[in-house]
Amino acid sequence: MTKTGSGYFTEENSAEVVAARNEGARDPRLKFAMEVIIRKLHEAVKEIEPTQEEWFEAIMFLTRTGHMCDDWRQEFILLSDVLGVSMLVDAVNSRRPTGASENTVLGPFHLDGAPEYEMGHNICLDQKGEDMVVRGRITDTDGSPIEGAKVDVWQANDEGFYDVQQKGHQPDFNLRGVFTTGADGTYWFRAVKPKFYPIPDDGPVGKLLGALGRHPFRPAHLHFIVTAEGYDPLTTHIFDPDDPHIDSDAVFGVKESLLADFDLVEDPARSAEVGFPGPYWDVNFDFALART
Amino acid sequence: MTKTGSGYFTEENSAEVVAARNEGARDPRLKFAMEVIIRKLHEAVKEIEPTQEEWFEAIMFLTRTGHMCDDWRQEFILLSDVLGVSMLVDAVNSRRPTGASENTVLGPFHLDGAPEYEMGHNICLDQKGEDMVVRGRITDTDGSPIEGAKVDVWQANDEGFYDVQQKGHQPDFNLRGVFTTGADGTYWFRAVKPKFYPIPDDGPVGKLLGALGRHPFRPAHLHFIVTAEGYDPLTTHIFDPDDPHIDSDAVFGVKESLLADFDLVEDPARSAEVGFPGPYWDVNFDFALART
Repeated sequence: MTKTGSGYFTEENSAEVVAARNEGARDPRLKFAMEVIIRKLHEAVKEIEPTQEEWFEAIMFLTRTGHMCDDWRQEFILLSDVLGVSMLVDAVNSRRPTGASENTVLGPFHLDGAPEYEMGHNICLDQKGEDMVVRGRITDTDGSPIEGAKVDVWQANDEGFYDVQQKGHQPDFNLRGVFTTGADGTYWFRAVKPKFYPIPDDGPVGKLLGALGRHPFRPAHLHFIVTAEGYDPLTTHIFDPDDPHIDSDAVFGVKESLLADFDLVEDPARSAEVGFPGPYWDVNFDFALART
Repeated sequence: MTKTGSGYFTEENSAEVVAARNEGARDPRLKFAMEVIIRKLHEAVKEIEPTQEEWFEAIMFLTRTGHMCDDWRQEFILLSDVLGVSMLVDAVNSRRPTGASENTVLGPFHLDGAPEYEMGHNICLDQKGEDMVVRGRITDTDGSPIEGAKVDVWQANDEGFYDVQQKGHQPDFNLRGVFTTGADGTYWFRAVKPKFYPIPDDGPVGKLLGALGRHPFRPAHLHFIVTAEGYDPLTTHIFDPDDPHIDSDAVFGVKESLLADFDLVEDPARSAEVGFPGPYWDVNFDFALART
């Protein structure tokens, strides 16, 4: 046995030796992914040169993160979110032609089976917060209206919580609804102005954010899934550009193209037109879908 | 707000945007490590381009790995071991001058406070297995003997288990001992020939090994920690080069320089000399320590 031909692990050849061991992997996709993961892990270790104590601290961080996970809390997804990995996975899976609206992360609060409403319906069922109208058009990338597009919307309430986070305190399906466009492709509904809110920060990920000098807040936004036959589904948010955290979303969901305008309407005639007793926020945002 | 100056997350600038958010980290070492981790994670995602389903499978693998960890089982350390990360961390922390013996991983089975014995003592307390003598010299890198070096040795028994894995079944401190060298720097003790054994493979890491076409075995070895005042502590193994798994240690602990010779002695006169009734294995291995 010679030193050069032995194939034993050394600091220099570490990643190659480990990856070569996976020669017999049944699934070529898993084998490829593991080769990349091993190579990047080893590159990171060689650049950081962690002490044994630092390595053990990383092991314990991952252990605490795993122990935090249960049926109601997914701390590894939170970790993926705050490291920008969830957004990056969304990005590589949502490349769109020019002119199509951009995706952003789904988040953990979507519910299937939200009520279908007529246009103009007020999805706010708890009468809290500042009135808001959201309206716009669903088009293709040429600007032609799409008929029969489903607009599935959900948002946090005036206290920064989704209905599923405050079961019993908020009505079921509060601030959720599905709307279907007619021939002109327009949509509109009534709701309340959303507030910024923190991601759950009482676990290891929250501690990490603290140590990194970061806050846990997501700027105010509304979630949309827009679908229509023959088009790529669009999962996205629209954001309030005046939110104090608009430039520091804890999960990196903000994109330039997803900033909406929130205009305060103080004209009583316009309020009367949309059925609000006083001033309201008017948000006008169009979505363009890419053909499949 | 302009597209170029906004600092919002894009596929292209993803790692830079995330790392920039850690500007206010209190600990510069943590900030540096997180910058590397984020950069390598994002590089891996861009190269693999996981689907949302693959990303979620990775999240669930980490979750299951975390849930497997308790006071008695550290599945994340196992994961680190089988990906060669533990060995790499050991390597970057154990660079030695030419002529010094090489380190390898400590492993989870060392105990403090093993009994101190006179040279020649038989550390096998359960009378199982094939008799073995281990002997050699502790020197500096110039080959001069080191007096007063402590040789702390531990090994699995003939069934491939450490005493701590079979409490009640094996005597306490079976196959463990500490020996102190005299002026000539030599050591010797009696034991039994070790067997290969599997790392725990009934969890997510074992499943991953299976999917990668890998076995969970570590080739037969003895563990040593050799310490002496004025010298770097040496944590290492010596291996049986004829073990069936010598070229495929599940945790990559084998190094060329740590292969010992296991010679079968069938001369009754030599057996009588070391106090064995019949044939025994003779292992001669020297350790060279680097000055601090």
